[in-house]
Amino acid sequence: MKKNILVGQSGGPTAVINGSLYGVVAQAKEHKGQKIDHIYGMINGIEGFLKDRYMDMEADMTSEEFEALKTTPGAYLGSCRFKLPADLSDPVYARLFDKFNRLNIGYVLYIGGNDSMDTVSKLSRCAKAHNSDIRIIGIPKTIDNDLVGTDHTPGFGSAARFVATSVREIGIDAAIYDTNSVTIVEIMGRHAGWLTGAAVLARKYKKDNPVYIYLPEENFSTEQFIEDIRRALETRKNIVVCVSEGIHDAQGRFICEYESAAGVDNFGHKMLTGCGKYLENLIRIRLGIKVRSVELNVSQRCSSVRQSQTDLKEAIEAGRFSVDAAVSGASGMMTAFTRTGDAPYAMECTLVDVNDVCNKEKKVPLEWITDRGTDVSDAFIQYVLPLIQGSVTLPEDNGIPVFAYRRPV
Amino acid sequence: MKKNILVGQSGGPTAVINGSLYGVVAQAKEHKGQKIDHIYGMINGIEGFLKDRYMDMEADMTSEEFEALKTTPGAYLGSCRFKLPADLSDPVYARLFDKFNRLNIGYVLYIGGNDSMDTVSKLSRCAKAHNSDIRIIGIPKTIDNDLVGTDHTPGFGSAARFVATSVREIGIDAAIYDTNSVTIVEIMGRHAGWLTGAAVLARKYKKDNPVYIYLPEENFSTEQFIEDIRRALETRKNIVVCVSEGIHDAQGRFICEYESAAGVDNFGHKMLTGCGKYLENLIRIRLGIKVRSVELNVSQRCSSVRQSQTDLKEAIEAGRFSVDAAVSGASGMMTAFTRTGDAPYAMECTLVDVNDVCNKEKKVPLEWITDRGTDVSDAFIQYVLPLIQGSVTLPEDNGIPVFAYRRPV
Repeated sequence: MKKNILVGQSGGPTAVINGSLYGVVAQAKEHKGQKIDHIYGMINGIEGFLKDRYMDMEADMTSEEFEALKTTPGAYLGSCRFKLPADLSDPVYARLFDKFNRLNIGYVLYIGGNDSMDTVSKLSRCAKAHNSDIRIIGIPKTIDNDLVGTDHTPGFGSAARFVATSVREIGIDAAIYDTNSVTIVEIMGRHAGWLTGAAVLARKYKKDNPVYIYLPEENFSTEQFIEDIRRALETRKNIVVCVSEGIHDAQGRFICEYESAAGVDNFGHKMLTGCGKYLENLIRIRLGIKVRSVELNVSQRCSSVRQSQTDLKEAIEAGRFSVDAAVSGASGMMTAFTRTGDAPYAMECTLVDVNDVCNKEKKVPLEWITDRGTDVSDAFIQYVLPLIQGSVTLPEDNGIPVFAYRRPV
Repeated sequence: MKKNILVGQSGGPTAVINGSLYGVVAQAKEHKGQKIDHIYGMINGIEGFLKDRYMDMEADMTSEEFEALKTTPGAYLGSCRFKLPADLSDPVYARLFDKFNRLNIGYVLYIGGNDSMDTVSKLSRCAKAHNSDIRIIGIPKTIDNDLVGTDHTPGFGSAARFVATSVREIGIDAAIYDTNSVTIVEIMGRHAGWLTGAAVLARKYKKDNPVYIYLPEENFSTEQFIEDIRRALETRKNIVVCVSEGIHDAQGRFICEYESAAGVDNFGHKMLTGCGKYLENLIRIRLGIKVRSVELNVSQRCSSVRQSQTDLKEAIEAGRFSVDAAVSGASGMMTAFTRTGDAPYAMECTLVDVNDVCNKEKKVPLEWITDRGTDVSDAFIQYVLPLIQGSVTLPEDNGIPVFAYRRPV
């Protein structure tokens, strides 16, 4: 019997999350006439679907839009940050499954990170409890690369490529004057330092910029930081250092919170800035040196122009594999990547129990963090290097990339 | 008689300033054996040259490095911010011309912006006063596009392409949640709003994001800004606005200085942030809404990945044309661009008196600024659109662009 498939996106965007959506829709089309009839997309994830917001991924999109979707950053379907209740007897589940049944949904695919896998876990456990044959599969995505059970996550490779490229360019920019300077680059990653660590790839040779890389897996000391900078300035003029947004002291207090406590605006409100800006001011005051901070900000997760071909290919593959898995009867699983080769790099999709994934965080192993928490090891480099390979050619119009936009439905 | 040529770079970097350097060296090679013998590069501009820091652009570079130079951002030769004294009888001039003569320099080419053209003006007037036959030519570059006497400047097109692309991506990123949000993008340009105005190209349709664009050519009122945001939120959920770093109030006080007065750190020092961060905090407090600010920062001027093919081609052409001009006897001139066609766009290099260029600033014409200072006109769009056209393929190694690095000489 033919069933309909429903796909949604959740959590923060990445450069290739729509690649996975493209893969889902493309593979679902392959099953049309046999296992799958309509292909629906939740708008703004499970939260929007609860308000009956969804679209038909074929009828509501032109073929040009579908092609542009592949390389469009962000989340085409819109996203949400919505936590389903822990109590599976909560009426929201009855409402949801009623909606699934009315739309004759047989397969629910949810693209997201940690929290989204929590949704997949709850929905699949709920389906099991109610003897529903709706199959629920999670498709991983996050620039943070912090999902357990998978070698890496789609979205990370492109973000890492963006970070490595930007930090190399910033190093070039910082070196043009014949005077001492410090440049602090703040990189996303609240609890896991994968993306910040990828800045190591900006180096052309050992001990090139960035001279230091600080991850949130280790405690951060501002006094040690000042000392690190002072020492580096003894042998070189222009220093670039990378810090994760989530660096914190030994007491677990985020460095970005130091600033808030100090900076109060005209209205007496705390001003919110990042740790990079805090450290910039600290170095200026304590070392009296030219210093600048650069927050790579949302471009890390939404820049299309540094998409990694490997990452995009794998994101699409994860989407396709997940459809096949659901159609074959899997449920309560997340599609994961297993690295099957290093030279040359090779990867295979597998399935892992989503309950072993959700609400956990994969951090950078401490043995990959070196030099008193100021660098990463060769093992880290070998891990990340294959993930940033290859360029993607973007369709352009008038000098600007063409993206797919969802029309109001 | 064969003379040597000396080329230098000065002021802030751009994505294509090395394109002009490439053009100078490539064209100088064409004149080898006839008018030109050695090709020297000042290291860190006129300031470094005064310390006898220079390199041989042929002997000290491999052919691979020379090819990589073309698409390397930053300033390969290093830069300086050095103002020559107004008094042409100052001994520094005698020192400089003595060094020129000892190196048998016949041609000095200086790539830079406003301040660098001041150097070209002084050197050429000094040469004239001393009956020296050394020819001095300025080659324009600046992402700010604020040089008079030329239709536009090399470097601006690539920066504009970076800004337009980034703002379009940020608009995609900002739209993923079904909640109200404001994103403030801060763009470089202290006194001229050319680069901020280029954000208009991010729009896919009239009134798309960015909904407002604020240039420094007009006075900025924080109260009017809050009112503008409030009004926009009545009809749309996700707003992106672009502000120039140099926006200021009617009294001429920079908005970024508002913050400094309010934010004082633990040591009692003023904290330096930008106007975007100030406005972010202002909107959060006054409208109680989700708001984020993004400072595009140095990537605007050093990003290689959004180089405009048109811009790079013109930067190289400016370098080549300047060599020919110098060899033909011109001095005290700056190479300028004249737009000779609109559809299709066409450009020709010309020469303008450098004394008519230096120490002036070309701002966006007020008639191109519309909607009470919150937008730019179609004329602005027609002006900037041809300058961002075409992609440049960068040489890559291991997933990261390959750049030319100057070896110590």
